[in-house]
Amino acid sequence: MVLKVFGSWQSTCTGRVLAVAEELGLQYELVQVNLAAGEHKQPPHIERNPFGQVPALQDGDLVLFESRVITRYLARKYGKDSQLLKEGTPEEAAAVDQWIEVEGQHFNPPISTIVAQVLFVPLFFGGTTDEKVVAAEVEKLAKVLDVYEQKLSKTKYLAGDYCTLADLHHVPYVHYLIATTPYGSLVETRPHVKAWWHAVSSRPAIKKVLGNMKFS
Amino acid sequence: MVLKVFGSWQSTCTGRVLAVAEELGLQYELVQVNLAAGEHKQPPHIERNPFGQVPALQDGDLVLFESRVITRYLARKYGKDSQLLKEGTPEEAAAVDQWIEVEGQHFNPPISTIVAQVLFVPLFFGGTTDEKVVAAEVEKLAKVLDVYEQKLSKTKYLAGDYCTLADLHHVPYVHYLIATTPYGSLVETRPHVKAWWHAVSSRPAIKKVLGNMKFS
Repeated sequence: MVLKVFGSWQSTCTGRVLAVAEELGLQYELVQVNLAAGEHKQPPHIERNPFGQVPALQDGDLVLFESRVITRYLARKYGKDSQLLKEGTPEEAAAVDQWIEVEGQHFNPPISTIVAQVLFVPLFFGGTTDEKVVAAEVEKLAKVLDVYEQKLSKTKYLAGDYCTLADLHHVPYVHYLIATTPYGSLVETRPHVKAWWHAVSSRPAIKKVLGNMKFS
Repeated sequence: MVLKVFGSWQSTCTGRVLAVAEELGLQYELVQVNLAAGEHKQPPHIERNPFGQVPALQDGDLVLFESRVITRYLARKYGKDSQLLKEGTPEEAAAVDQWIEVEGQHFNPPISTIVAQVLFVPLFFGGTTDEKVVAAEVEKLAKVLDVYEQKLSKTKYLAGDYCTLADLHHVPYVHYLIATTPYGSLVETRPHVKAWWHAVSSRPAIKKVLGNMKFS
């Protein structure tokens, strides 16, 4: 049975799941949820995710939501031979978990606000970017990326010298930050962060996903 | 070698780690980090956690930060026979991960803001609670707890009929919400959430941790 991912090509959280699915070489069907029409807030999607967000995954009888939960499940179920979770020892697994959690708790809040304000508010909601909010979040993101710069001066990827879920989880927002906002310099001016992003984004699986993350 | 947890008894994120350490019956030393004196922002603590927050864990040569990363490590390393992560099958593990992530992404943001505004701002920062901010976050938390009420009408705990990391991660903030704010009714008025909290908070390990989470 083919995996079903409910979401949209341009959604950042959907992109997080697709990056991992592609990296694992999985076959999947992307079932479009029409966000503009509010389909994510109504049945049947609200039964897949009670918080009314995309993506959700259906794998046979199993339904999951939250992108980082879906990626962890896919890596465990279908990526036993991959290095994506490094679950062989508690210590190596913890190094991956460390940077998965940093992405979710420190990196995601400021970068998601910046991309929402600069890209999504004008594009989808007919609103105006709140520059004061953006400035505050850019300052926070810069501090987070200073920590990344220090870490990435010691290892090629966040958890070590191999690409893991922790790196892949960053793909959608870094892509939009660089491609659609004036703040790509936050990445480009930090040599180790820049080299890391180049390494991650030039992986064939990631190039394929990023090719779909655009607005015509 | 005894585990070292760097933090404070009253810190919510430290409490999250201690709840799991006690549940696993581990021996540990709590090394006090003086938050009032800003010790968490200076060496040596900033070398344990580059984001300058508590807690951090030292286990021999391994140093970890982020409470949810530390708990996952402890459960894997020292709780192989526990049910805390249910890593035997990808499906059961995903059910635990599902609600760990809901706690981190949906539950924690509003409840941490409420507790910070009502308890910590006046107590530690000499400030005044911003009631407008609190009202908005109470509304968000109520919606999150509606989802919990629905889930907990089907299973005794969040991931199933057994207590896991997902439940334990909620301990510190639910405790403070009920013990120190006027918003405990958010829990008390939802029968299944109330029964869940009673089941979690009456566990001997949790009672021990909560006994230290008070301000004299």
